Amino acid sequence: MIEAGRLSLNQATVKNLSVAAAADLCARHGIEGIGLWRDRVAECGVAESAAAVRRAGLHVSSLCRGGFFTAADADGLAAARADNRAAVTEAAKLGADTLVLVCGGLVSGSRDLGLARRMVADAIGELVPFAQRLGVRLGIEALHPMFCADRCVIASLGEAVDLAAAFPADAVGVVVDTYHVWWDARLAAEVARAAGRIVGYQVCDWVLPLPAGALLGRGHLGDGVIDFGPVSAAVTAAGYRGYVEVEILNADIWDAPPDQTAATVRERFAAILDARGPGHQ
Amino acid sequence: MIEAGRLSLNQATVKNLSVAAAADLCARHGIEGIGLWRDRVAECGVAESAAAVRRAGLHVSSLCRGGFFTAADADGLAAARADNRAAVTEAAKLGADTLVLVCGGLVSGSRDLGLARRMVADAIGELVPFAQRLGVRLGIEALHPMFCADRCVIASLGEAVDLAAAFPADAVGVVVDTYHVWWDARLAAEVARAAGRIVGYQVCDWVLPLPAGALLGRGHLGDGVIDFGPVSAAVTAAGYRGYVEVEILNADIWDAPPDQTAATVRERFAAILDARGPGHQ
Repeated sequence: MIEAGRLSLNQATVKNLSVAAAADLCARHGIEGIGLWRDRVAECGVAESAAAVRRAGLHVSSLCRGGFFTAADADGLAAARADNRAAVTEAAKLGADTLVLVCGGLVSGSRDLGLARRMVADAIGELVPFAQRLGVRLGIEALHPMFCADRCVIASLGEAVDLAAAFPADAVGVVVDTYHVWWDARLAAEVARAAGRIVGYQVCDWVLPLPAGALLGRGHLGDGVIDFGPVSAAVTAAGYRGYVEVEILNADIWDAPPDQTAATVRERFAAILDARGPGHQ
Repeated sequence: MIEAGRLSLNQATVKNLSVAAAADLCARHGIEGIGLWRDRVAECGVAESAAAVRRAGLHVSSLCRGGFFTAADADGLAAARADNRAAVTEAAKLGADTLVLVCGGLVSGSRDLGLARRMVADAIGELVPFAQRLGVRLGIEALHPMFCADRCVIASLGEAVDLAAAFPADAVGVVVDTYHVWWDARLAAEVARAAGRIVGYQVCDWVLPLPAGALLGRGHLGDGVIDFGPVSAAVTAAGYRGYVEVEILNADIWDAPPDQTAATVRERFAAILDARGPGHQ
């Protein structure tokens, strides 16, 4: 259903590699897209990162990440504002399809979810004109509710769609990540409602048991319980034709040889997302 | 807002105690309600458990738990059916206000969420006439989405309300547990929609970081990030006037002296849920 040419490797899956090494890895394995992370981009510089990706013949499907809009004081908010403008500028220079926004958790010292959500909406509203001037599309990512307190108060796809809908569709969309939204009984309906606004589709699997901290428990496609077919079909029906990023935060996978990881990513993608892969409809 | 007389101690908070010891603990601390667990009830027998609770002058606010409806084969389904009938019978003998249902995760070996959800609905439908004959009200509990795969495919309050709404309100309701639903942007709306169907209100706090397995990371009221005021107000506005169970699954609290735990439960309940408590509106 999703052909192998749409595979993109998110750099977080091979976290120990520099941008240049990750780009070379993709080229070696016939992976045509890459999702970059700002910390790694900063290490070798934006211009050199863009050049490395270009040399490898890759398309930058996303830059991760802007967001964290819920600072507790004026200095923190000013820093977040500056950092998000820097992220937009970097996304433009890298030619990224979208700047992924992880919006931030509760304000430190506060239990007010409504306040945090209003701050997120306000901050995105403030960022949009700047992003539009630079031609960068923002992608709001709903994170799993287990990250609501400390990483992202936008805890369901429906919320992300509501938030994006306040802005022009060419300025703000949503990123669908199977790990974060697979459990949602409203998922199909919310993906349909996101038609024309899906600016990123990330995949990895839900694997049990959760490790302490819950952040690094993700798995290769097929190692967990997510039924990727219906989600992919809904995302496709909603008009998304872009790259599909495999993004797996998992310490064991970080420790594995990157070539082994890339080979597994490719194989599983073909077997599970691509209708022409072996053993799957 | 919620007076201390409505406090109930769920036995899972003092997991190491027998029913009799937990009942005595409640009596010593002026806690008038108790939520019982079937494994502990089975240890000393249903009749003796009922007698112990009666001697202590307590009301049984809930029996935990029925459910786990998603067995993979006929034998497993038959066992689940028998076990749920036994649970209803025990709830009736104990005079419990509600039998809490934790509905079960994905069918073993399956990734089909829709299938699991249909099995849950079918099994509840089959159980309802039996529960009605015995005068036991079933309470569907939505669990946090991080438990969707292995414990409960009913992963949001809205789903639980939809499921309950298929049955008479005096037969099937929903249990609201702050730990599981606090993150939900639709929470206020779904609690309002549950008006007349809320058959249990359980409270504990969301504490970070999550421990491995995520099950035992819950905290005393006030130790985490949940804003109990708005949830309690919504539950009250929806007509719930029953006991409020403090249910905290936490290995450190299990290891603490039970009298210390009960005292903390009482203090925090008064301070955070009861308007007349110190330092809270």
